Amino acid sequence: MGIKMGIIGFGYMGKWHLNNAPRVENVEVVAAYDIDPARVAAAKEAGLVGFDNLDDFLKSDLFNLVLVATPNDSHCALACASLKAGKHVICEKPPAMTLAELDQMIDTAKAAGRLFTVHQNRRWDKDYLTVKNVVESGDLGEVYAVRSTLHGARGAMFGWRADPVHGGGMIYDWGVHFVDQLLNLFGYDSVKSVFCKTKNVKTPDVEDYFCMMLDFKDGKYAQVEIGTFVLKPNPRWLVTGNKGTLWIRDFSCEEGGIICVDESVHGEAEPIMTTSGPTRTFAPRAKEEIIEKNLPDVPADLREYYANLRDAIDGKAELIVKPCQVRAVFKVLEAAFRSAETGEQVML
Amino acid sequence: MGIKMGIIGFGYMGKWHLNNAPRVENVEVVAAYDIDPARVAAAKEAGLVGFDNLDDFLKSDLFNLVLVATPNDSHCALACASLKAGKHVICEKPPAMTLAELDQMIDTAKAAGRLFTVHQNRRWDKDYLTVKNVVESGDLGEVYAVRSTLHGARGAMFGWRADPVHGGGMIYDWGVHFVDQLLNLFGYDSVKSVFCKTKNVKTPDVEDYFCMMLDFKDGKYAQVEIGTFVLKPNPRWLVTGNKGTLWIRDFSCEEGGIICVDESVHGEAEPIMTTSGPTRTFAPRAKEEIIEKNLPDVPADLREYYANLRDAIDGKAELIVKPCQVRAVFKVLEAAFRSAETGEQVML
Repeated sequence: MGIKMGIIGFGYMGKWHLNNAPRVENVEVVAAYDIDPARVAAAKEAGLVGFDNLDDFLKSDLFNLVLVATPNDSHCALACASLKAGKHVICEKPPAMTLAELDQMIDTAKAAGRLFTVHQNRRWDKDYLTVKNVVESGDLGEVYAVRSTLHGARGAMFGWRADPVHGGGMIYDWGVHFVDQLLNLFGYDSVKSVFCKTKNVKTPDVEDYFCMMLDFKDGKYAQVEIGTFVLKPNPRWLVTGNKGTLWIRDFSCEEGGIICVDESVHGEAEPIMTTSGPTRTFAPRAKEEIIEKNLPDVPADLREYYANLRDAIDGKAELIVKPCQVRAVFKVLEAAFRSAETGEQVML
Repeated sequence: MGIKMGIIGFGYMGKWHLNNAPRVENVEVVAAYDIDPARVAAAKEAGLVGFDNLDDFLKSDLFNLVLVATPNDSHCALACASLKAGKHVICEKPPAMTLAELDQMIDTAKAAGRLFTVHQNRRWDKDYLTVKNVVESGDLGEVYAVRSTLHGARGAMFGWRADPVHGGGMIYDWGVHFVDQLLNLFGYDSVKSVFCKTKNVKTPDVEDYFCMMLDFKDGKYAQVEIGTFVLKPNPRWLVTGNKGTLWIRDFSCEEGGIICVDESVHGEAEPIMTTSGPTRTFAPRAKEEIIEKNLPDVPADLREYYANLRDAIDGKAELIVKPCQVRAVFKVLEAAFRSAETGEQVML
């Protein structure tokens, strides 16, 4: 039967889904509800059935799936109401304000026999898929450290994302994606502990900077650092293994590579000079010892997200973004908030 | 009276001091002791009085200061014997294998009424002095995060530095310098907690990689990451404040700068596209909003280390590298080892 989608919240992300979901076969956006009459009007202009009343919207049989794209503090109530009305639900990220809220949503979906998922769209980002491809290829050997970084110059959170009441802040806005990527890569049950520092560099009420250190059960660790005011960005990815290093400059994947060492070439370690003395340990490798490879061209197609959900609704596929995964990510985020607040490492 | 220096251990660092200390007025190197006859011969060839017997060396009145430049596990006994023989002592870093050993050295110096200091030469590194200059200038505003990084491609610790019995490993070899720099910058009593991950990427018995997170009492944090096998190096320094960012590529300071934002130019945040959607928060700044400044040319002269020690011996100056500072650094290193071993954050 496919997807007929009704959108709650016809703002920035609501419109984004309108532009993207219908690029997939048997996925249509048909209706939208908003508390703002201007946005209801905009939905109508865009060819949707516009609702200004939630009850009417939920009673409508025009659609079988609701997309919740409102500020974070309203997700739980709206998703649960939609599930109880018999709709499948995609919730924008982060799905909830607390783990208790998230569990309520998951339980409500189970009771209603409906699918509940979250828009963890950045599993389909080209840079992430490239990392996954290279890590799984074995080119890097055993990976011991991952640095997932996003540094920007804007120094601001926008709109309700600057407001803690609505669940603003960088951990919820971007942290939820980058943690999901790492757990997707290494396993949703793989994190042992979380240590997190947050800062309010330019935004008074929510964190616009954080650095999160994830300690994995198998000994590797990862660092997620996201800052809106770091004016000389480190690369988006720096992944190091005992055979090589992968780096990717930014989302575009236009700049980056895989660097390995040819251990059969035995170059002498000629000391380099520093102001205070020579070092052999940090002497550079000779050119002929270094093997550089271009990034593989890994296809990235966000349409898979909607196509999978459509097939899952039709009973033809397993849901990719599973509630249990969403829950595992949320537990890491909760631990990060607690660590930032107490200044202490949180064991999971 | 100045410094007349006798060296214990005429190896790599012993020779380094022979080449550098005499560049300072009233500082002479006159003698050396080593357990290896070939090195005693080399010392004689270099114009020094060579000793193959420690007792004879310590009884000699040719010198008033002993430089201990042997593997780390022998520092304590040799430094204490030298102090008891009435010599002032410079010890190579790290001074000891445990805090108890270090305290024994400090107490012995006090009892003997002699100066005891450690060769924390990297306080005179040009890159560090540039960071200190810029941080103190206020150009960055309030600093919230410091990343002090050294990434190399060699993937190895050399000689006894690969052996835990002799106190090998990257924390002792380089960590001791970078932690000293950060404490020198922010205060020797400023660290609240330490979290540290170590790895044996290429060296089986000692850590050749570590990432240490220092949480400071005033809320800022710093990260020291040193790896011998990270083939795409991040910059040596990335220091971020609420007004700007300082970055320095490497020890040479040939590449780097101070980047600030002109808040009087109000550029619109035009979203950038990523595979999975647009972002305003990470939209770049327009060129006219960015103010880039070159690194200041900060003079760095390691001769100050010896000159200060000479003047301190002569009662004309306060010692710059103080035992209490060395002790504070060592406490951080001990905490780092404990954190790495237990996987837990260590409160100081």
